[in-house]
Amino acid sequence: MPKQVDHALRRRELVAASWDVISREGLEALTLRKVAAAADCTTGRIAHYFDGREELLLAALSSAYAAAEARMVRIERSSRSAEDRLRGVIHEALPLNAERLKEWRVWLVFWAAAATNDDLAQENTRRYVAWQRMLARLITEHAGPVNAQNLAFALVAMIDGIGVRTSLSPDARHRKLARAAIDRWIADLDA
Amino acid sequence: MPKQVDHALRRRELVAASWDVISREGLEALTLRKVAAAADCTTGRIAHYFDGREELLLAALSSAYAAAEARMVRIERSSRSAEDRLRGVIHEALPLNAERLKEWRVWLVFWAAAATNDDLAQENTRRYVAWQRMLARLITEHAGPVNAQNLAFALVAMIDGIGVRTSLSPDARHRKLARAAIDRWIADLDA
Repeated sequence: MPKQVDHALRRRELVAASWDVISREGLEALTLRKVAAAADCTTGRIAHYFDGREELLLAALSSAYAAAEARMVRIERSSRSAEDRLRGVIHEALPLNAERLKEWRVWLVFWAAAATNDDLAQENTRRYVAWQRMLARLITEHAGPVNAQNLAFALVAMIDGIGVRTSLSPDARHRKLARAAIDRWIADLDA
Repeated sequence: MPKQVDHALRRRELVAASWDVISREGLEALTLRKVAAAADCTTGRIAHYFDGREELLLAALSSAYAAAEARMVRIERSSRSAEDRLRGVIHEALPLNAERLKEWRVWLVFWAAAATNDDLAQENTRRYVAWQRMLARLITEHAGPVNAQNLAFALVAMIDGIGVRTSLSPDARHRKLARAAIDRWIADLDA
């Protein structure tokens, strides 16, 4: 395998291992030793790819965000109706299955860390600008000329709030309430 | 001072010191040593009042919740109009001033910790049941016979999402967007 490909692949493996540790045990558990155990390698090997725990954490967050964004873009560019694309992107953003739930546990940790870390807070702001812009486009395509920026702000908030609630109470009742709240929000757009 | 009063007072002081540490530096920084420094006492003295870090953390969260709930109940029982009481309680729940922002930073830490700690997740569920019930009452008093439970679920989500966003970007623009989103949500109730 070419050396550069190998390097990128190893980094991705270590990022995936960090993710497992964070979503299972929280940010406090993210130590190089635990990541090494989860990736079945030595801490010395991690040091070869990442300049410490903080860089590993930032890489894990960027990768989570990039993966989520790629899924959203695929839905946005699909041939479904504007309403279905809007609903599809929102559902994809919520912890309605096991994989998304794992992602959400990482977001919760991210927010808590960002509250006291400027680098993470800036990364968070960048993420929201792109995310809100995509939702504003989808809202406009479905509902026509509306105050899309303000509506997108409210939709981002609704998704985050539902995400928090469903992450911390991941049962069928909360998933049902989540879907109903999103359906009502979209229906209100047409009203 | 009677011994029991003294005991309760000392516990409150240590809880306040824990809060300062969490909101300033995050949960990872919550060590008995740092709390002792913030409360200007020894770690041995803390051990006299709390059975370790976990108990101190749970006490800090319960106290944050109790303080917020007391403020909400005062507004709910005030003589303002139903709409003003609803708006007042929502504004009181959001990080629109320095004190609430500090509270929100503790909530963010709480959520992240609850994602991987069953005791905290249960405490969180209890908090939400009471909070959603209060909002459902206020919605019904303002808007009359509506599907208050579903609306209250959506309102809790909206408040949480706006709270996250405004906590991580605590500037005038986001506070303005927050107030506008809440005003629109309340106006939609009447529609």
